[in-house]
Amino acid sequence: MTDSHSSVLEQVQQHARETALLESAQQLLEWDERTYMPPEAGDYRAEQVAYLAGLIHQRHTDRRLGEWLAQLAESPLAADPHSDAGCTIRQLRREYDKKTKLPESLVKELTRLAVRGQQVWVAARKNDDFAAFAPVLEQMIALKQQEAEALGYTDCIYDALLDAYEPDEKTANVRRVLAALRDDLAPLVQAIAESDRSPHLEILERIYPVSAQETFGKEAAARIGFSFAAGRLDVTHHPFCTNLGPQDTRITTRYDERFFPSAFFGILHEAGHGIYDQGLPADHYGLPTGKYVSLGIHESQSRMWENMVGRSRAFWEFFYPSARKAFPDALEGASLDQFYFAINDVRPSLIRVEADEATYNLHIIIRFELEQDLIEGNLRVADLPGAWNEKYRQYLGIAPPHDADGVLQDVHWSAGLIGYFPTYSLGNLYAAQFFHQADQDLGGLEQRFALGQFLPLRDWLREKIHHPGQRYTAAELVQNITGRPLDHKPLIEYLRGKLGPLYGIG
Amino acid sequence: MTDSHSSVLEQVQQHARETALLESAQQLLEWDERTYMPPEAGDYRAEQVAYLAGLIHQRHTDRRLGEWLAQLAESPLAADPHSDAGCTIRQLRREYDKKTKLPESLVKELTRLAVRGQQVWVAARKNDDFAAFAPVLEQMIALKQQEAEALGYTDCIYDALLDAYEPDEKTANVRRVLAALRDDLAPLVQAIAESDRSPHLEILERIYPVSAQETFGKEAAARIGFSFAAGRLDVTHHPFCTNLGPQDTRITTRYDERFFPSAFFGILHEAGHGIYDQGLPADHYGLPTGKYVSLGIHESQSRMWENMVGRSRAFWEFFYPSARKAFPDALEGASLDQFYFAINDVRPSLIRVEADEATYNLHIIIRFELEQDLIEGNLRVADLPGAWNEKYRQYLGIAPPHDADGVLQDVHWSAGLIGYFPTYSLGNLYAAQFFHQADQDLGGLEQRFALGQFLPLRDWLREKIHHPGQRYTAAELVQNITGRPLDHKPLIEYLRGKLGPLYGIG
Repeated sequence: MTDSHSSVLEQVQQHARETALLESAQQLLEWDERTYMPPEAGDYRAEQVAYLAGLIHQRHTDRRLGEWLAQLAESPLAADPHSDAGCTIRQLRREYDKKTKLPESLVKELTRLAVRGQQVWVAARKNDDFAAFAPVLEQMIALKQQEAEALGYTDCIYDALLDAYEPDEKTANVRRVLAALRDDLAPLVQAIAESDRSPHLEILERIYPVSAQETFGKEAAARIGFSFAAGRLDVTHHPFCTNLGPQDTRITTRYDERFFPSAFFGILHEAGHGIYDQGLPADHYGLPTGKYVSLGIHESQSRMWENMVGRSRAFWEFFYPSARKAFPDALEGASLDQFYFAINDVRPSLIRVEADEATYNLHIIIRFELEQDLIEGNLRVADLPGAWNEKYRQYLGIAPPHDADGVLQDVHWSAGLIGYFPTYSLGNLYAAQFFHQADQDLGGLEQRFALGQFLPLRDWLREKIHHPGQRYTAAELVQNITGRPLDHKPLIEYLRGKLGPLYGIG
Repeated sequence: MTDSHSSVLEQVQQHARETALLESAQQLLEWDERTYMPPEAGDYRAEQVAYLAGLIHQRHTDRRLGEWLAQLAESPLAADPHSDAGCTIRQLRREYDKKTKLPESLVKELTRLAVRGQQVWVAARKNDDFAAFAPVLEQMIALKQQEAEALGYTDCIYDALLDAYEPDEKTANVRRVLAALRDDLAPLVQAIAESDRSPHLEILERIYPVSAQETFGKEAAARIGFSFAAGRLDVTHHPFCTNLGPQDTRITTRYDERFFPSAFFGILHEAGHGIYDQGLPADHYGLPTGKYVSLGIHESQSRMWENMVGRSRAFWEFFYPSARKAFPDALEGASLDQFYFAINDVRPSLIRVEADEATYNLHIIIRFELEQDLIEGNLRVADLPGAWNEKYRQYLGIAPPHDADGVLQDVHWSAGLIGYFPTYSLGNLYAAQFFHQADQDLGGLEQRFALGQFLPLRDWLREKIHHPGQRYTAAELVQNITGRPLDHKPLIEYLRGKLGPLYGIG
C-alpha cells in the first residue's frame, strides 16, 4: 500500500521535474528575448515560446497527473502538510485544480484580451485618453469576474484573484493590515512633507559613469551574497530577475548616468530576488519544496536588501569609502550624511515606480482599494479616474493633472493582473517583520553591516525562508519565524525610526 | 485522392515545423551554454538539453510520421523530387529511415562512448599517450562499423558513415577527387617550401587591440552581407555559427591581441556560414526546402568568404585603408603588399586547425585515407600512429615528434565523427568551383571587391545555393550551377593563380 503510494509519488515528482525542464527552457527563451536576441527574431521567438507554453499547459492539466494526485491525497503521505511529501501533494493538487477549473475558452479569451489590452493601454496613456481605455478595461473586469467564479471562493470574489499571486491569503486580512498601515502612514508622510528639512538631491544627479556603476553594483551584489558563479547581471529596459535552473539566476538593471539610485538600488532589489532563488534547495528544483512561497514573500526579499539594508546608514558606513573611489568626481565634497539623506528622500509624488519606500505603500493601497471596488461591482470603470484622483488627494495630498500620470500609469490592469498590487506592500510588511526578527536573533545587524558583514543575514534568510520552499504558507512562515501574525507595526516603526531623525519629526 | 494527399502533406509539414521549434530552443540552450551561462549551471543545462533531445527524437521516429511519409511516397506529390512537395517527402523519408534503422541500444552506446571517448582523448593528448586512447578508439571503430551495417550501403562501408554529413555523396567519388587534388597539391606545397620568398609574419603579431578588432570585424561581416538585425557576434573559446530561427543566426569568434588573423578570418568564416543560414528561405524554416544541403556545401560558403574573398588582394585594396585607421600602430609602415603576402603565408605544418588554405587539404586527405582504412579493417588502431606519421612525411614533408601533435590532435574520432573530415576539403573544392562560376557570371569579381561591392556575390550565392534549400543534392547543385561535376581543377588553379606570383613559382 505505502509502497505503491511511494511509487505514485515518485511518478508525480518526475512529472513535475520534467515540466520544470520545459519551463526553464521557456524562461531562457524569454530572458534571451529581453537581453541579446537580434531585433528581427521576435516573430519566431513568439512561436517558440507559445509552442513550449502549449506543451507545458498539457503537462499541467495531464489527466494522469490528476489521478495520481487524487490517489495520493487520500494516502498517509499527505497527512503532514509540512512534510516533503505532504507539501508536494498539497501544492501540486492546488495547481492542478486551478489549471483544470478554468475552461480553455476563458483562458484563450483572457490571453487575447491581455495582449490587446496592453496595446490599447499604451496608446491611451500616450494620448492621455482614459475613454479609449475604458471599454477594454470593462471587458477585462468582466472576464476576471468570470475567472474568479470559475476558480471559486467562499468569502469575497477578490479572494479568488488574490490567491493567484499570494496563495492562501485572504482579502479581509490584507485589508485589515493595509488599512492600519494607511492610517499610520498618511500622517507620517504628511509630517515629512511639512518638515523644513530636505536632502540635497543634486548629489545623486551628477555624472556617474556607467562602467563604474556596473563594477560597483556587482561588487555590492556579490558582497550581500548574490552568487555570480550561479548568476549573471545584464542590461534591459525593464529590470527583472529570472531563474533558469537551480544554479542559474539572472538579474538585469538599467543604467542612468545622471541618476545614481536607479541602477544601484535596482541591482540590490533584483539581487534580493536572486538571493531567494539561489537559496531555494537545488535538489528540489521543479518541486513545490523547491519553489518560492508567494509574490509577497519574494518581494519581501528584494525590498529588504534594497531598502532596509541598502538604504541604511550602516550599509553606507561600509560602502561609502569605496563609492567615493568609484565616483571620485560625483561624490567630491558630499558627506556620508548628505548622501545618506539624499537616498532616503521621502515626498508625495504621482508615479508609483518612482516613489520612495514610505509613500510607495500609499500608491499600492489606492490601487488595492480601487481594484476591489471594480471587481466587486462597487465602482464603475467610468468613475475610476475620479475615484483615483480623490484617493491621491486624500492619502498623499496631491492629485494628478492628467490621467496619463494618474489612473493610466500602470500596465497591470490592462494585462489582467488584478490582485497583484497588494503583494508589493505585503512584501514591505513581511520584510519589516522578518528584519526586526533577524535583528533580534542575530543581535544587532547594523554593527555587522558597518563592518561589511551581510552574510549572517543572508544565511538567516536562507535557513528560515528560502530553504523551506513551499512547505509553509506565507502566513505560517510569518507566524513561525516571528511568533506573531502579519502586523503593520514593524514596518511603521522601521520607517519612523529611520525617517524621524532625518526629518526632525516624531 | 490528391486532396487527401495534400492534407497528409500539410500534417507532415506541421509536424516538421513543430519539431524545428523544439530543435531551435535546444540550439538556444547550447548557444547560451557556450556564451553567457553562469559556470555552475552546467549540470542542469545538460538535463535540459537531454530532455529536449529526447522529445525531438520521439518526434523524428514518430510512427505516424512514418505512415504519412509512406503514403506520400506513393503519391503524385512525390513524383518530381525537386518540387517543394517532392523535396519535402524525399528528405523527410530519408531522415525518418535513418533514425528508425538504428537500434536504440546502439544509439545509447554510441552516445555514452562519445562522452567517454572525448574524456579519455583529452587526457591522452595531454599526456601524449596514444596507448591510453587506443582501446576506446577500437571500441568506437567497432560501434561505427555496427552503425554502418545497420544503416546499410551498397558499395563500401564508409559510404554509410559519409552519408550522415554529405548526403548522397559516395566514397569512390570523394576518393577520386581528393586523390587528384593530393597529387597536384603536394608538388605545389613542396615548391612553395623551397621558394626563397617568404612574408614578414611579424606584421600580424603586433598589438591589435581587441575592441578595434571587434569593430573592424563586425564592419567587414556586415559589408559582405551578414545581417546583424537578424544575427549576433559573441565571444567563445571555440568559434561557431548556429541558427536559432529564420531571423536569428549567431556567430562567435575568439580574439588574440597579438595575432590579427585568428579573429578576423574567423569572423569572415563564421559570417560565411551565417550568410548561408540567413539566405535559406525563411518561410520554409524547419522544412527540407529551408535547410542546408550538406556540411560540404555549408563549408563551401565559409571558406569562400574567408579565403577566396577575404584573403584576396582586391578585398584588401578596399579594406586596407580602414584597417590602417583601426590599427594605426600595428600597421605603421606595413605596405598593402606586405600585409597581403603575410595573410597568405603557406608552409607545411603539423596542426590542421592552424594550417593555411593550401596545406589544409593535405591534412584532411591524410585523415580521410586513414579513417577509411580503419573502418574497412585495413588498418589496426595499434598501427595508426605509424601510418599517420608516414603520410605526413609523404604528403607534407614533415613528421610530428609527438603523437599529441600528430594522431592525437583532433577530437573527431573520439566523438565518433568518422566520415566528417572530407567535408572540409569538399567545402574548399565546391567553393573554388562555385567561385569560378560566379566570377564568370558576374563578370570580374575582383574589380567589384576592390570597390567594396560584395553583395553581388552574396546575392548570386543566395539565388543559386541558399534559396533552393535541399531541393538538389550537393552533386546536382554543382552540376546545375557550373555545368560540370565536382572537379579538383578549379581549386588547384585558384591556389596556383594566387600563390604562384607570391612565391615566384610556376
